[in-house]
Amino acid sequence: MKNLSLLLILAALHVPAILLAQENIGKERPKITSPQVSKDNIIEFQLYAPEAQVVYVNGNWMEKPDLGIAMQKMQDGVWRLDKQQLGSDLYQYTYTVDGVRINDPSNVYQVRDVNNVFNYFIGNGGVAELYKTQSVPHGTMIKQWYPSALNKAERRMTVYTPPGYESSKEKLPVLYLLHGMGGDEDAWPTLGRVAQIMDNLIAAGQAKPMIVVMPNGHTSNVAAPGSSEKGEYPIEFYTPDVGTGDMESSFMEIVQFVEKNYRVKKGKADRAIAGLSMGGSHSLFISAFNPDTFDYVGLFSAAFRINDKVKREVYDQFDANLKKQQANGLKLYWIGMGKTDFLYQTGVDFRKRLDAVGLKYTYHESEGGHTWSNWRQYLVEFVPQLFQ
Amino acid sequence: MKNLSLLLILAALHVPAILLAQENIGKERPKITSPQVSKDNIIEFQLYAPEAQVVYVNGNWMEKPDLGIAMQKMQDGVWRLDKQQLGSDLYQYTYTVDGVRINDPSNVYQVRDVNNVFNYFIGNGGVAELYKTQSVPHGTMIKQWYPSALNKAERRMTVYTPPGYESSKEKLPVLYLLHGMGGDEDAWPTLGRVAQIMDNLIAAGQAKPMIVVMPNGHTSNVAAPGSSEKGEYPIEFYTPDVGTGDMESSFMEIVQFVEKNYRVKKGKADRAIAGLSMGGSHSLFISAFNPDTFDYVGLFSAAFRINDKVKREVYDQFDANLKKQQANGLKLYWIGMGKTDFLYQTGVDFRKRLDAVGLKYTYHESEGGHTWSNWRQYLVEFVPQLFQ
Repeated sequence: MKNLSLLLILAALHVPAILLAQENIGKERPKITSPQVSKDNIIEFQLYAPEAQVVYVNGNWMEKPDLGIAMQKMQDGVWRLDKQQLGSDLYQYTYTVDGVRINDPSNVYQVRDVNNVFNYFIGNGGVAELYKTQSVPHGTMIKQWYPSALNKAERRMTVYTPPGYESSKEKLPVLYLLHGMGGDEDAWPTLGRVAQIMDNLIAAGQAKPMIVVMPNGHTSNVAAPGSSEKGEYPIEFYTPDVGTGDMESSFMEIVQFVEKNYRVKKGKADRAIAGLSMGGSHSLFISAFNPDTFDYVGLFSAAFRINDKVKREVYDQFDANLKKQQANGLKLYWIGMGKTDFLYQTGVDFRKRLDAVGLKYTYHESEGGHTWSNWRQYLVEFVPQLFQ
Repeated sequence: MKNLSLLLILAALHVPAILLAQENIGKERPKITSPQVSKDNIIEFQLYAPEAQVVYVNGNWMEKPDLGIAMQKMQDGVWRLDKQQLGSDLYQYTYTVDGVRINDPSNVYQVRDVNNVFNYFIGNGGVAELYKTQSVPHGTMIKQWYPSALNKAERRMTVYTPPGYESSKEKLPVLYLLHGMGGDEDAWPTLGRVAQIMDNLIAAGQAKPMIVVMPNGHTSNVAAPGSSEKGEYPIEFYTPDVGTGDMESSFMEIVQFVEKNYRVKKGKADRAIAGLSMGGSHSLFISAFNPDTFDYVGLFSAAFRINDKVKREVYDQFDANLKKQQANGLKLYWIGMGKTDFLYQTGVDFRKRLDAVGLKYTYHESEGGHTWSNWRQYLVEFVPQLFQ
């Protein structure tokens, strides 16, 4: 057994056949690295597609991502789009090749957003440094199933525990962090970069060590697509649970599970709840319906009632519940909204209602709209204010 | 606030812009569901690509996946490949459109294999039922970092704990499960379907509840690509740690971490180690070098020495160590190999060596070669024999 030859055989044959094919038929194929991200966030894209007629990059930083920006065809069959000056963020993109939406075959880093898969990359400097895995102590990410009386089945959640949780005996506070209509228990951990943000804020002394619980807010599912007994089904944006009040009404079963299974502090001073869009709606109704349960509330681009024809106890007596929340010593009611968010007016109306009942809130208005870019930044703003 | 209109606005605007674009420009675009998997595993593929000249499906079940099978263009701009009769397995595929390798835009279920991303689907009946999330109690999947003296840094591992672990006080046995040269701590959990296989075998009473530890066997990395401080870098198949002996030499730091942090039984009768390809090589040297540590060893398409110019203590006295392993009461030394595996002769030579030293093993020869299809099936064969 010759070591070098074995090594080469291993290297050659363990690799998927399609790769081999690329190597065999691609002797004159140029080597592609895409995207290329410079230190100061000038981005270049490349795609080898010698037969293509029209190729676009569709990036979520563009004014019209659906139209995208055309790439230029070079003599070597490589299409290029260069010198995109971007900022400090996580960016998503795809290509459109002769009308077909494709992922960048040179970039294995992909993330599902609702029912599409996007390539992503992370810019340098600024807030984006919080979205990267850094050389700091790392918390643990857990995919766990809890018994749900509502579903009469186990439901799946993601839990972040901070560095040192396993070896400590200290009890920790808990942030319940809820996704939007297009999300599930995998949304905040992937697009939301929760593990990275929490690790980095905690390492910098900007956030208290805490547990972050990310449940699945679609009560018609027990888990994210592909992770339940429904298998690999085509994802529809709208699910029948939306607006029914089931999530809000049953939420305390999640709190009870967490407080039984994790080493946590159990008072309202050590519980926070926050959510984006539909999850913001969930958060405001859950926290009002349980007015002595959460001293910290975060509403990120929050919706209000999603279907106000539904009558549920969790939606009743809302103003009275808000007053109880305030009277019970609420410490932070934080609202983040983008100037161009389609829910902007919903936010205006909601804050008038808070003013009318005398609930004190902190309002943070940002550029941009209903985007993960904002929700990550809202999380970065919100978390350092918790449990102080 | 009208409930229905808000719902529609939410539904319309929360969804990525690219989708909207597809809906807007695609009024005459046919609705695509791809792949379609019938109950008896007849598979159909569809791709909308009206401008394309030549389209192939490249499936890992095909004789020549790199060449693939040509799709037929229909009048509506949809390419079709129908009536692929498959079996009971998890299958991977991509398309090639005019020479460009793409993922199926209608199938969000994707998995990275080394440095390519594939779509996947799961057939019905037979062993593939073990690869699906079923309505059975579910274990917990944990991504955790452990302190490594070797790397002088934290390294990332995946840990499966069986249903009921959190609420029980029982100590459990541990299977250490190692990946191949192209893998990392995410390989067995994704392509290997470990959570599903373990949940289903345990629910059927075919496997003892056990903890499964899946570390990262590339000591030049602390975590899988995209999960370390190296960020989103282009993945090379070969990493400089391969064949150095670092993984084998440092392995007991993983065992020590697990036994300190999980509620486990600590004798050799309650430890198993198994791995595929390079991980098989790791498993056989680790178990021999620590001959009183693992009563169960599994070698799946195992390599032997990957670079035999390297001199390390962990590779020394191998025959003597094998004899000690046997003398210490080894309970199962299980070897799985495919008839067309490029390491087949390596396996023949290795078994002669075992015969020469008198180590008793179980040999399982299967159809096929160096594939995840075999490794999943070997796991299904191996796990029920553990800790009995």
